[in-house]
Amino acid sequence: MSGIEDVARGAGVSKATASRALTGHGYVAAATRARVRRVAEELGYVPSSSASSLATGRTRNIGVVMPYLNRWFFAEVLEGVQAVLLAEGFDLTLYDAKPGTEGRRRVFEDFLARKRFDGLIAVALEPDDHELERLVGIGRPVVSVVSDSEEASVVRLDDVHAARRATAHLIDLGHERITFLGGVSDHDGPHVDRERLGGYLSCMRGAGLDPRHIPSDVSLPGGYDAAVDLLSDPERRPTALVAACDEVAIGAIIAARRLGIAVPSALSVVGIDNHEYSDMFGLTTLEQSPREQGAAAAELLLEQVRAPDAARTEMRLQARLIVRGSTSPPPGVRSVAVGAVP
Amino acid sequence: MSGIEDVARGAGVSKATASRALTGHGYVAAATRARVRRVAEELGYVPSSSASSLATGRTRNIGVVMPYLNRWFFAEVLEGVQAVLLAEGFDLTLYDAKPGTEGRRRVFEDFLARKRFDGLIAVALEPDDHELERLVGIGRPVVSVVSDSEEASVVRLDDVHAARRATAHLIDLGHERITFLGGVSDHDGPHVDRERLGGYLSCMRGAGLDPRHIPSDVSLPGGYDAAVDLLSDPERRPTALVAACDEVAIGAIIAARRLGIAVPSALSVVGIDNHEYSDMFGLTTLEQSPREQGAAAAELLLEQVRAPDAARTEMRLQARLIVRGSTSPPPGVRSVAVGAVP
Repeated sequence: MSGIEDVARGAGVSKATASRALTGHGYVAAATRARVRRVAEELGYVPSSSASSLATGRTRNIGVVMPYLNRWFFAEVLEGVQAVLLAEGFDLTLYDAKPGTEGRRRVFEDFLARKRFDGLIAVALEPDDHELERLVGIGRPVVSVVSDSEEASVVRLDDVHAARRATAHLIDLGHERITFLGGVSDHDGPHVDRERLGGYLSCMRGAGLDPRHIPSDVSLPGGYDAAVDLLSDPERRPTALVAACDEVAIGAIIAARRLGIAVPSALSVVGIDNHEYSDMFGLTTLEQSPREQGAAAAELLLEQVRAPDAARTEMRLQARLIVRGSTSPPPGVRSVAVGAVP
Repeated sequence: MSGIEDVARGAGVSKATASRALTGHGYVAAATRARVRRVAEELGYVPSSSASSLATGRTRNIGVVMPYLNRWFFAEVLEGVQAVLLAEGFDLTLYDAKPGTEGRRRVFEDFLARKRFDGLIAVALEPDDHELERLVGIGRPVVSVVSDSEEASVVRLDDVHAARRATAHLIDLGHERITFLGGVSDHDGPHVDRERLGGYLSCMRGAGLDPRHIPSDVSLPGGYDAAVDLLSDPERRPTALVAACDEVAIGAIIAARRLGIAVPSALSVVGIDNHEYSDMFGLTTLEQSPREQGAAAAELLLEQVRAPDAARTEMRLQARLIVRGSTSPPPGVRSVAVGAVP
């Protein structure tokens, strides 16, 4: 088997240059790099990554800790992270930490302690569980996506603001009976759902309106089931819904259609996300891009891997309102927001 | 910083036993393992994974190569793989190989050549591209999910069979105008789509019926768009659809509802997958479980990592028909399949 010295000799460069060309650590002229790599390929040389990481103290690997893989938001974040790491020549090791499982305990106790990574991206850890602090304690750079942290850098949507804007849009249209659909109570459940509910509650109270919350699973079937029950009851039916996310909103639109309740003339629906299905359902929503959040987190983390003393950064993103066909004035209100024009 | 000898001394065992207890390689009595791990934790000992993999020649890491992360099938496979690896103490490194991208080329040329894994799971590589052979050539065990291979072990659905059964179900109900919705032509596109289309075509021809294929993106919005166009044209509207997958089928059901075409009385729809949304839409479908396929692939791979001379295995799974409310006899046909009773 060929060694690095064979490659160096074949390419007419020093061992150090050959090593830099092959590992990507340090500067090598593009033409030299190409020559070294061609020789390495001809000789069938493959670096031993274990020996390489002992020598450099770098694994060229980033760990990603996430609670779900099969939900839109998380899969999109992962795509964004992966694209940046791929371009920068870093591997991605996935730590799947489902809430409340033995597997999650093992990820924190066994897997992460091996430190087979130069840094970590932690997605949607619950602040109350103090897991982010444990990750920071490992001694590698950490970037948190979704969750706030006083120690790690953070990339996240301003969820309170997004829900306030969704609610304000309906109030501007003239709605008063506006229900928040999805999530659990305002004391339990993921902090994202709580913050969105909180944004809705504060906006409703600020406008002097009575808030109402109908819990559901934060999923398309969850939104559908809860909306069928709510909308089929004339006593409780609102004129508008703020959904905890677009999947819940789309479930509610499908439910309304099944019940013969026209959207938006009899029911307005607004979501948060701009999910890939939103356009197809004509859903008015507050747009965020989890893919861009994942990419931003990866870029931030690589900066910190390269300069460990870099200051902690916080990116708090504002969602953008996209108005489609699922929102309109409530039944009986013809013109809207006239009062808002000076 | 504490070394392995400190842990061994503290636990009253040999260094070799302490190492086995901490790495999971080789047998150690449960009580001893617990004691060693407790001492290691008290001392804050963390093994150097790089040194450990040099010594054992094992990385305790499995590579997963997939073209998409954000589609139901792939995310479910990944969940199944991850659950098994987590239980067995293996890391999972993700190689995201989007078809036709520079990133995919780099994954094959740079990342995989580093061999930072004990084995690979390759999901839905296209046989025509000969990428599976390249992976096998790396010299580590490989298990293919979805795609056939003569060299690697395979876990896959029998897609031809699934589409034949979907079509046969509609023919049994009395349908004759049955269209296949989704995918591209029978010469291009992913082999899964081609095999499903092929199963439909052979079943239709076997029954003396004229096949008809309407291409679409293999996604929910793709199925919706194609179905809106097809179903709104009375000249072309069939009495039944075989969809390339459940997402396409659900898109078609949503389109039919929007157009006022009742499912199943005016249009029957059958899918393939048993997607998480199928139940909510009452979709008749051929069930497969990508999560179980992922788990089976991971178990098979770990067996081969432990016994590299183990024979190649092929698991070809048969989908199971689940009849829900989206299929019925065509308009005007009251009783069904009477001719089939002897």
